Amino acid sequence: MKPPVNAAADVDPELIASTTRRLKLTIAYDGTPWRGWQSLPGGRTVQDELNAAFEKVSGRALRVQGSGRTDAGVHAFGQVAHADIPSSARLTDEAWSIALNACLPPSIRVLQAESVPDTFHARFDAIGKTYRYRIWRPRIFTPFENHRAWHLYGPLDEAALARCAELLIGTHNFGRLSANRGDQSEVQRRLDPASTTRTLRSVEIRDLGDVLEIEVEGEGFLYKMVRLIVGTLIHIARGRETTDWLRDLLTNPEGLQSNQAAPAEGLYLVAVQYPEPVVK
Amino acid sequence: MKPPVNAAADVDPELIASTTRRLKLTIAYDGTPWRGWQSLPGGRTVQDELNAAFEKVSGRALRVQGSGRTDAGVHAFGQVAHADIPSSARLTDEAWSIALNACLPPSIRVLQAESVPDTFHARFDAIGKTYRYRIWRPRIFTPFENHRAWHLYGPLDEAALARCAELLIGTHNFGRLSANRGDQSEVQRRLDPASTTRTLRSVEIRDLGDVLEIEVEGEGFLYKMVRLIVGTLIHIARGRETTDWLRDLLTNPEGLQSNQAAPAEGLYLVAVQYPEPVVK
Repeated sequence: MKPPVNAAADVDPELIASTTRRLKLTIAYDGTPWRGWQSLPGGRTVQDELNAAFEKVSGRALRVQGSGRTDAGVHAFGQVAHADIPSSARLTDEAWSIALNACLPPSIRVLQAESVPDTFHARFDAIGKTYRYRIWRPRIFTPFENHRAWHLYGPLDEAALARCAELLIGTHNFGRLSANRGDQSEVQRRLDPASTTRTLRSVEIRDLGDVLEIEVEGEGFLYKMVRLIVGTLIHIARGRETTDWLRDLLTNPEGLQSNQAAPAEGLYLVAVQYPEPVVK
Repeated sequence: MKPPVNAAADVDPELIASTTRRLKLTIAYDGTPWRGWQSLPGGRTVQDELNAAFEKVSGRALRVQGSGRTDAGVHAFGQVAHADIPSSARLTDEAWSIALNACLPPSIRVLQAESVPDTFHARFDAIGKTYRYRIWRPRIFTPFENHRAWHLYGPLDEAALARCAELLIGTHNFGRLSANRGDQSEVQRRLDPASTTRTLRSVEIRDLGDVLEIEVEGEGFLYKMVRLIVGTLIHIARGRETTDWLRDLLTNPEGLQSNQAAPAEGLYLVAVQYPEPVVK
């Protein structure tokens, strides 16, 4: 049963605003079955599934706004999104998360729903993101990490990895460690170096035995940036290039982009940071 | 290309035996996509996949013999099986595991292949098995444990679990904590209490935070025995029955069987024990 239609068309905008409430969602997903975060014709994306769940619960079409896209096969422990729900829907925040989860497939879970001020914006307010990349090191790829890690057997130069991590931290032009999304020409993209300059706050290499983790935290990330960083580091750690290549990629914007992108299935969006605790 | 046909039909049995070599396999599988271990008409079982992989590698039909069955959806970290491969196939043990893995889906992996004496039998020589049951405790079921744990939110009486573990250790008639496979009548099954008596060497309850593990090790297990033990323990830990119920199940063979079986998806066959290191 749909709630009464909100005849908001000729009403003062302030009144319209007051008929909705903004929810901040923290979402985990196994990216394996999905064509990425971003809504696509034909669906089968995480955003499409969330939009559909909101429509089922609230009885009206809603559009979820994410903090940013993730590629097909990429996972999330803590993607963040916001959505404006009808104030008429008298559900507590916790009831929203329960109702949404009841409408979502088990590979997508709303971990938390919180009321936030209408000014909160999942994408524009984000001041940082943490990504983790997981690599399975033993010779045989356990069935339990299939689609959830990159299988990479053989020696890796851990000292080289540590040197690369050092080089990456700080503010650099990551133009050669990112890909063009296809919405501009490569020439356009390079005309404005500011558009490809980003700051990495930390790069951690964690040897956990069977699993090697590379975790990066930064203000913001360009398209495919984490996968190109990881792929480039591993190429160097395998001894196929030296750390000079990474130094050149970071300091000489004229060269070719790195051609070493790690596969999507090892990548996890761990968390999105915002300026302060957002509570209404 | 098939190897030359072995015209063994009218040859001395000793000679036939000498034309094969026995391999012991240690196998891990994610049970989610499979209809269990045991070969079935229509396939889609782990054993059928292994048989098919052997046929692809050796060019002739082979039948893998497992240490025992696992139900649909049950996982394995270390199932054990044996197979007799043609001596003519000049592959090292490691080459066999690599070749088999190349023919198997990623949800089934041969972790190890070892040559063993022809007298080794994966089922009849097994002197023990270890099973682990995994329970996801938080309110929200993470996408990354979907199909790999039982989602069980709410208080559990850990002291009761510990008391149950104590009661279970040792030799008991597990007739009421097992199910009839359907190949005999229930009356037949009860006529011979020896057939339902088993020894549990250890029962461990491990609180790992988000995950509660119940690990049991014993000489042998009846059909559905681990799932019925776990389901019964949890029923008691939820306060729906007392430990007296478990005491009765173990000591009074006349009563009804437990009706509390934990779901298959939380169960893992961890290891199969054999009398001594089996190496040729």
